[in-house]
Amino acid sequence: MSKVEKKVVTEKIILGLDPGTNVMGYAVIIVRASKLSLIQFGVIQMGKTGAHELKLKKIFDRVLSLVDEFHPDQVALEAPFFGKNVQSMLKLGRAQGVAMSAALYREVPITEYAPKKVKQSVTGNGNASKEQVAKMLMQIFNLKEIPKLFDASDALAVALCHHYQNGALKSKSKSWDSFLKDNPERLKSLK
Amino acid sequence: MSKVEKKVVTEKIILGLDPGTNVMGYAVIIVRASKLSLIQFGVIQMGKTGAHELKLKKIFDRVLSLVDEFHPDQVALEAPFFGKNVQSMLKLGRAQGVAMSAALYREVPITEYAPKKVKQSVTGNGNASKEQVAKMLMQIFNLKEIPKLFDASDALAVALCHHYQNGALKSKSKSWDSFLKDNPERLKSLK
Repeated sequence: MSKVEKKVVTEKIILGLDPGTNVMGYAVIIVRASKLSLIQFGVIQMGKTGAHELKLKKIFDRVLSLVDEFHPDQVALEAPFFGKNVQSMLKLGRAQGVAMSAALYREVPITEYAPKKVKQSVTGNGNASKEQVAKMLMQIFNLKEIPKLFDASDALAVALCHHYQNGALKSKSKSWDSFLKDNPERLKSLK
Repeated sequence: MSKVEKKVVTEKIILGLDPGTNVMGYAVIIVRASKLSLIQFGVIQMGKTGAHELKLKKIFDRVLSLVDEFHPDQVALEAPFFGKNVQSMLKLGRAQGVAMSAALYREVPITEYAPKKVKQSVTGNGNASKEQVAKMLMQIFNLKEIPKLFDASDALAVALCHHYQNGALKSKSKSWDSFLKDNPERLKSLK
């Protein structure tokens, strides 16, 4: 084995998702050593008309495509835990569950963050506005213009939040197997 | 082509699901001409401990196994639309979304029924007790004993409800393609 092959490159790909009923934001970032780069971010529009199950299928298919294209080591999900009413929370829960399914199907570990935690982590202020979050992201990722849709910047923010939270502690790439190894108590529930 | 091969056998397999956060009921029934038979029913326990995402993964994997084993033409889902609080509805929504994902991934059309509709359809009374529903199911499917877990009988009830609702109207086996063909407006939302 040559010296080059022996060199360990710490590289981690994080897929950030902000799943909603009508729009889902996504962002793929890569962390190489301590350098952060944005690979891609955007939104997937489910459309306001059409059957609920077709929207869900679209979420699943698109998240699976993202996972298969970018092979993220980890998925970070922006997940509000409270909402206006039970109806909207059921719908949001479904969208979240479907997005999570695609990552789980490919055995990519998921971490969830409340919106406040994401804002706190990115800007230092849990009550920051979406504009403030977007401006901070522009600086960090050297973006030339503010993203038009906040769903995309929210997804980027949660990916960054995940890096800040776990980056220092667990900088090595983690597989589903090592996730289970580190969390043996979580495995029991599957048996 | 022989005469035997030309003979059209109207046969439909329905997978009934009653997804919950900790337990999911399932039932597979087959409708041949107008004869109903129960192939299998039971529950999948997610366990009360362990990470939420591992429970979701278990739901996805098990539903996918059921779909791959029994090749249902249609999935019927018991889906409450109201609940006690937003927290529990978010969790329930996730469980539902994950169960739906597996069916959607294999392109099996899903129909949802509210619990009241299921009871009404099976017993004639939308406010029937779980015992009354179970007793009716015992009669119809010639079961020797009452199912121990109501999650399993609820799943059987929703499969039967789906047959009653759609059986007469759409007795031919429906594929995802024909579902889209019959519902062109639903396709638009995917574009």
